[in-house]
Amino acid sequence: MAGKVYLIGAGPGAADLITVRGMRLLQSADAVLYDALVQPEMLDYCPQAVLIPVGKRCAQASTAQRFINKMLLDAAAKYGKVVRLKGGDPMLFGRAQEELAELAAAGIEYEVVPGITAALAASAEAGVSLTSRGLARNVLFATARVGEGEAGSDWVKPVMAADTAVLYMGVRQAAEVAAALLAAGMVPSTPLLIIENASLPGSREFPLTLAELPQAASWNLAGPAILLIGEVYRAKLALAEPDVRARFG
Amino acid sequence: MAGKVYLIGAGPGAADLITVRGMRLLQSADAVLYDALVQPEMLDYCPQAVLIPVGKRCAQASTAQRFINKMLLDAAAKYGKVVRLKGGDPMLFGRAQEELAELAAAGIEYEVVPGITAALAASAEAGVSLTSRGLARNVLFATARVGEGEAGSDWVKPVMAADTAVLYMGVRQAAEVAAALLAAGMVPSTPLLIIENASLPGSREFPLTLAELPQAASWNLAGPAILLIGEVYRAKLALAEPDVRARFG
Repeated sequence: MAGKVYLIGAGPGAADLITVRGMRLLQSADAVLYDALVQPEMLDYCPQAVLIPVGKRCAQASTAQRFINKMLLDAAAKYGKVVRLKGGDPMLFGRAQEELAELAAAGIEYEVVPGITAALAASAEAGVSLTSRGLARNVLFATARVGEGEAGSDWVKPVMAADTAVLYMGVRQAAEVAAALLAAGMVPSTPLLIIENASLPGSREFPLTLAELPQAASWNLAGPAILLIGEVYRAKLALAEPDVRARFG
Repeated sequence: MAGKVYLIGAGPGAADLITVRGMRLLQSADAVLYDALVQPEMLDYCPQAVLIPVGKRCAQASTAQRFINKMLLDAAAKYGKVVRLKGGDPMLFGRAQEELAELAAAGIEYEVVPGITAALAASAEAGVSLTSRGLARNVLFATARVGEGEAGSDWVKPVMAADTAVLYMGVRQAAEVAAALLAAGMVPSTPLLIIENASLPGSREFPLTLAELPQAASWNLAGPAILLIGEVYRAKLALAEPDVRARFG
């Protein structure tokens, strides 16, 4: 007997920012495979399920994707209703396509349930719309990869072309990101907003300019952080403490 | 006594694709102001609340934004817990910033709750990831405006620069959208995917090429539709009925 697999977006972190559908599927799941980005509170929805952690966190010891795929197939063979719970939305910066391809090849039924991606949660929390009449009509979601040769700068052109841009995981390499954007002609006074731990307790926001961004690398933000770029963040900047060091203090 | 206003994303349509937080706030709301895009089933969560429809649907008789703002302030003055329920996510292609500015100016407390935006729901349903290793590292969300002079083509450059692009409300003016993209140098065989009524009963998907897009204007899609553009949709196209007319039939 092969089970059915539900690939579910857990959302940004807060347990009540999963969808109602996602919660209900967790409540009736036989087994749940979950990412390191999934908060423990989220698993309170499924005390009945067998819990299978499957690692994966940027720059930590991670379980290889191939091994995750294998565990998913094994769970589908063993249990009736299997949930694969992924941080954020499964169809954005996850590696859902590879997991779905494995399931399809093995003839296992699956369904994808969307989740709130970090950019939407961060925007809600900050109270700044990603798009705004007269200021921004479009928004780009990207990951900044630096130092990987030509492919390491393929995010720069689309970021420059968009009105608002969101860089997932862009803060860790803040100096390199700033250098690449300045080299491409982005104005040093461009307003940015870093949001750390969106939707979680201890969430923080840091308004800054592109010129100040290199300093952010040394602030050792502890949680996952996203970098938002564009005119819509200028109002936040106007309200910020003038000394950028104090802002991050 | 001034109430608190919760600006909540209802998500793409299906009642169980709202967040758990959104559902719980609806369940305890005193008054709910809702868009035309919000499905009636969603209001089953709040039988106790005063329901206030506030119009707004593309190309239909719409209540002016200024009037919505006024109703929101009135409701906050009259009721304790007010929900402003918006289709999709409030911080993406809504006019949340204007509503929040009104509330702030009036000294009314507010909170924003994110929602699943149509692009994420459509991707989950189609089973195609917006980003995919080796194919697409970034995604642009835009609205296609055509025939409004210079500002009417400001979406073209960012769409061309992104790996994957999602055009909200891009199907109505399919011929103009296709012409603009072809003129900008997009390859005619570029794979597209139109998804109508994502997450709702009767949802349909139409794989097609950029060259075939002008024909889509005449198919009279009844529900809200989004247009997805990029290499990640090539696999869908390979599986499609060769005659594009039959595909839409």
